[in-house]
Amino acid sequence: MDPDRSSVFDLAAIAAASNGGNNDPSLPPAKFIGAPQKPSHMPYTKYLAYNRQVPFDYPQRTWPDKRLRRAPRWCSVDLRDGNQALVNPMDSERKLRFWTMLVDMGFKEIEVGFPSASATDYDFIRMLIERELIPDDVTIVVLTQAREHLIRKTYECLRGAKRAIVHFYNSVSVLQREVVFRKDRAGIMQIATDAAKLCKDLEGDAEGTDIYYEYSPESFTGTEPEYAVDVCNAVIDVIQPTPDHPMIINLPATVEMTTPNVFADQVEYVSTHLKDRDAVVLSLHPHNDEGMGVAAAELGILAGADRIEGCLLGNGERTGNVDLVTLGLNMLTQGIDPQIDYSNVPLIRKTVEYCNQLKISERHPYAGNFVFTAFSGSHQDAIKKGLEAREMAAEKAGVQLEDFLWLVPYLPIDPKDLGRSYEAIIRVNSQSGKGGMAYLLKANHNLDLPKRMQVDFERTVQAYADQTKLEVKDEDIWRLFKDEYLAIDDHGSTAAGKLVSDMHDSSLQQWGRLKLLNVALSSGEDGSDTQLTAKVLDRGVVVGKDEEIVREISGIGNGPIDAFLNAVATFGVYARVLDYAEHTMSAGTDAMAASYVECEIGQDAEKCVMWGAGVDSSIITSSLKAIISAINRAQR
Amino acid sequence: MDPDRSSVFDLAAIAAASNGGNNDPSLPPAKFIGAPQKPSHMPYTKYLAYNRQVPFDYPQRTWPDKRLRRAPRWCSVDLRDGNQALVNPMDSERKLRFWTMLVDMGFKEIEVGFPSASATDYDFIRMLIERELIPDDVTIVVLTQAREHLIRKTYECLRGAKRAIVHFYNSVSVLQREVVFRKDRAGIMQIATDAAKLCKDLEGDAEGTDIYYEYSPESFTGTEPEYAVDVCNAVIDVIQPTPDHPMIINLPATVEMTTPNVFADQVEYVSTHLKDRDAVVLSLHPHNDEGMGVAAAELGILAGADRIEGCLLGNGERTGNVDLVTLGLNMLTQGIDPQIDYSNVPLIRKTVEYCNQLKISERHPYAGNFVFTAFSGSHQDAIKKGLEAREMAAEKAGVQLEDFLWLVPYLPIDPKDLGRSYEAIIRVNSQSGKGGMAYLLKANHNLDLPKRMQVDFERTVQAYADQTKLEVKDEDIWRLFKDEYLAIDDHGSTAAGKLVSDMHDSSLQQWGRLKLLNVALSSGEDGSDTQLTAKVLDRGVVVGKDEEIVREISGIGNGPIDAFLNAVATFGVYARVLDYAEHTMSAGTDAMAASYVECEIGQDAEKCVMWGAGVDSSIITSSLKAIISAINRAQR
Repeated sequence: MDPDRSSVFDLAAIAAASNGGNNDPSLPPAKFIGAPQKPSHMPYTKYLAYNRQVPFDYPQRTWPDKRLRRAPRWCSVDLRDGNQALVNPMDSERKLRFWTMLVDMGFKEIEVGFPSASATDYDFIRMLIERELIPDDVTIVVLTQAREHLIRKTYECLRGAKRAIVHFYNSVSVLQREVVFRKDRAGIMQIATDAAKLCKDLEGDAEGTDIYYEYSPESFTGTEPEYAVDVCNAVIDVIQPTPDHPMIINLPATVEMTTPNVFADQVEYVSTHLKDRDAVVLSLHPHNDEGMGVAAAELGILAGADRIEGCLLGNGERTGNVDLVTLGLNMLTQGIDPQIDYSNVPLIRKTVEYCNQLKISERHPYAGNFVFTAFSGSHQDAIKKGLEAREMAAEKAGVQLEDFLWLVPYLPIDPKDLGRSYEAIIRVNSQSGKGGMAYLLKANHNLDLPKRMQVDFERTVQAYADQTKLEVKDEDIWRLFKDEYLAIDDHGSTAAGKLVSDMHDSSLQQWGRLKLLNVALSSGEDGSDTQLTAKVLDRGVVVGKDEEIVREISGIGNGPIDAFLNAVATFGVYARVLDYAEHTMSAGTDAMAASYVECEIGQDAEKCVMWGAGVDSSIITSSLKAIISAINRAQR
Repeated sequence: MDPDRSSVFDLAAIAAASNGGNNDPSLPPAKFIGAPQKPSHMPYTKYLAYNRQVPFDYPQRTWPDKRLRRAPRWCSVDLRDGNQALVNPMDSERKLRFWTMLVDMGFKEIEVGFPSASATDYDFIRMLIERELIPDDVTIVVLTQAREHLIRKTYECLRGAKRAIVHFYNSVSVLQREVVFRKDRAGIMQIATDAAKLCKDLEGDAEGTDIYYEYSPESFTGTEPEYAVDVCNAVIDVIQPTPDHPMIINLPATVEMTTPNVFADQVEYVSTHLKDRDAVVLSLHPHNDEGMGVAAAELGILAGADRIEGCLLGNGERTGNVDLVTLGLNMLTQGIDPQIDYSNVPLIRKTVEYCNQLKISERHPYAGNFVFTAFSGSHQDAIKKGLEAREMAAEKAGVQLEDFLWLVPYLPIDPKDLGRSYEAIIRVNSQSGKGGMAYLLKANHNLDLPKRMQVDFERTVQAYADQTKLEVKDEDIWRLFKDEYLAIDDHGSTAAGKLVSDMHDSSLQQWGRLKLLNVALSSGEDGSDTQLTAKVLDRGVVVGKDEEIVREISGIGNGPIDAFLNAVATFGVYARVLDYAEHTMSAGTDAMAASYVECEIGQDAEKCVMWGAGVDSSIITSSLKAIISAINRAQR
């Protein structure tokens, strides 16, 4: 019934001329070990390689030798392209909340809607203008198709705005020229120039509004770059921008169709072939159909683009627009100021998820919950060492730690710079090994285990992880540690403060033969003849079956540890210290001390080697407790 | 207490020598309209540009002129790198389910675990071997750090396997050499060659197992490429691979640190500087910290890589490994057989989400729920036209539609090829315009509205969308259409079948002045003198206030429509048909017909133009109903 529908577009001829896909059956398979891969029966002959759809070579490219040097001009299209791709587009409350955040973050160009297509958009833009919600240094962009009645309505919507960018577009791709518009190149170009002329005409009526223009050859990625340049240049001829009053030419990767290097080649071609280039802001609008939108934007900037349109966290039609958060923070990791404030990524995420009613993935760069989490033990170990090395280097350089160079393995960015904490960095599961558990003990419990003791404790954690098959949380590690090394300990009840309550855990059962009740020391001036007396509760080798005895013991030795070992030897417990480490757990006079000892326990054939740990406000008592911890573990 | 910890690594000196980031304050800001962007106060001076961390230029690159030609060798690391990054790593049930799917999809290399680090992994691999679950054409890969006791345990785990790849690694990056290992270049290289030598020694004991090797210079992206090549060549010297018994050199982008073109430069450098290149399978292992992992893999293939390691849907440490589903389906869109079966993406997604206990985003390429959904009206319109053009072209070419070239605007791939339906393609919200609603009426209700009538109905849909601010679902559109055009209709109750019940909707209130009760026709042979009598219920102009009258009317005209118009004129309703279209709604003798008429209603100053629609088993009755629909709308 529509006469146009009978004019068959000759897709079949295109298919024949295009000579099929890029699959070359004469190529041998990729190198392999074992057996080769088999054909998949996926219908690959149904698809045309990009270079057969849009043949284009640009060997004279210069962009691969360039590096990012500064932030581009950013334009958020969250309120337009992002919004139109939502199951439930934002109401004005959500739109306003998003708008306010964008302004606060420092965006100076914000595309606010498609007012001629949606009454919601129209009303929202009117509200921004009438309530004077647009700061002087922020420019709104409004989108319209290159069609007369829509352009007229767009201008109507802008009444009273101080400054605005009218963004008009028409699709110029090979495919859409044929199947959607059924026009030749000249006809399609005329849609663009007619729109540009109408805009210039209407400009006279828009008194008081400083009108700028943006033109998009839509579906640029499906278009011969030479033709896209011709259309853009024809539009430039009509608009006549100047360096002082430039216009924007925006290249939409409406659908991402190939690798970003090809897109960059096209961008460089356009950038070097546009008229009045110094009066044009060259902009890109990448989508993410092949998962390479971020790369397309970055390589496009190298290729000459001045401006990027995208959405926060990659909302937008289908797979989304390019993610401005990732782009901005990628800039930061290269030592470049993104000129947008990304210092509170959790708030940005919360607002975006609220406004869009769409969740991002936990692996989303910079914003996902797991992206700074290392589960691998070797990663955890390297992060721990990296953070320590950075601390020492900052101290040596006399620079505040927070200002000091960030170079930490597996963490390309300091989570604190994004408003995130270090808490999630290290998480321990059955795949982790010792690094993570050592990090957590240090970061959260001020216990800095010697490396060989980490190996000792790792066995306990690993057995627990393999048994439960669950993530081993910080509290699990702490409970396992206390149960393994501090079970008999009175958990420092003689000292005051937070650490003490942290040590005390009524849920754990005390076990172990010996418990230190008190200790007294006296020594000569050089400490060589230290005399020690102690009261020790001895619950017997088999606790509960033997009778409990309080032993008063004494010994003399070359320091308190030696004296204590001699004292316990008096009732038949033989121990020898192989390795020893201790540290304070916090600053100040009421600080607790942690001690770690590796002991050889027993005699002759019954000898074994055990680590023990002790915590006490007295550094002497903590070391004696550590010895008792090792003895108890040996006799378990 | 650890003596090593006192040897301060001179990060400060590195920072000073590196001369800061890439931010060049002498550069003018990017071109802009309105006001320039402001500094963000993000601490950009804390970060070193990649080219200052790892200086490397490779202007002799050839990869940008290449195009993808064939699938690489794929290796899934879901059960290792993916698994280790889970809050709760897979138990053996989930691991086995994942393994089975990978084998079914056609993977011939699968990394199955890190057996020396995890008892779960060890046991799983033993189970695969002992229960003979590894097909002959599948090769397992097991990961181990380049450390003696771990390598020994790895070989122990492989007892009885027919063929396996031992994958050993050590970190070789500038940063890790300094802060983690505190060794110079020679010392780090020796870790690798010692491991290689130990492997060769242990190979003798692994009787019956065909052992291959994979070596990864871990943190390759943080390493001088020249040094990475030196280490790899030293390992190659020890392993002595041959073209018939090759080894894998795997370059991990352990952390993605810069744009993928730089990575590709490095890959091309390595590919052209490795010893015994024809005995080496060059592999890449990209991560996604900067959101460019897919691009890094694709450009890396252009640059010479033979093999890609990744995870399904991009699971893995932090932001994840490169997504093999996206890579494979990107290949398909270029007319290349991915050699992996991705024909059931919904099942793959379901299994991956179940095994990993992690959801992907709704915008995830190829697999997210919204990635084939067009909300934009112009996109919807183009898709509709593209699908129609494709149908016609296939018919013309005499090719089955499902085998015919896929070229459809905004849909880079046929959703059916991935096991997805077209259902979700078109969804209508307040931003949509007429295209989507027309598509849905056609696809789901067999109503193919003339274009100008689409514009008419669009106003109704748009008003509803703007008012509810919600997605307009198919059932909403259908209800709106019935209420607007078919309210008085008896919904075809005289005909049988599904279409009738589809028409009937008791939730809608009937409105409108006239209702056709029955009609009788007689005409001469050429139909020029058609005589029509009809019974019409007339509820008056103001329904409920006027009295209901059943009018028996008759008229003569040039065909039934003309006769009917003359008949209604007898009681003062004047109508003239301006445009008219009709079509059958299904095949067969009991088919329903749909009619659409544009009428001028009334006389003189009271004239207005209205569209009406009618549905009936009789094509004549449906057209008369359409006229009544237009009259009723005019008199509302």
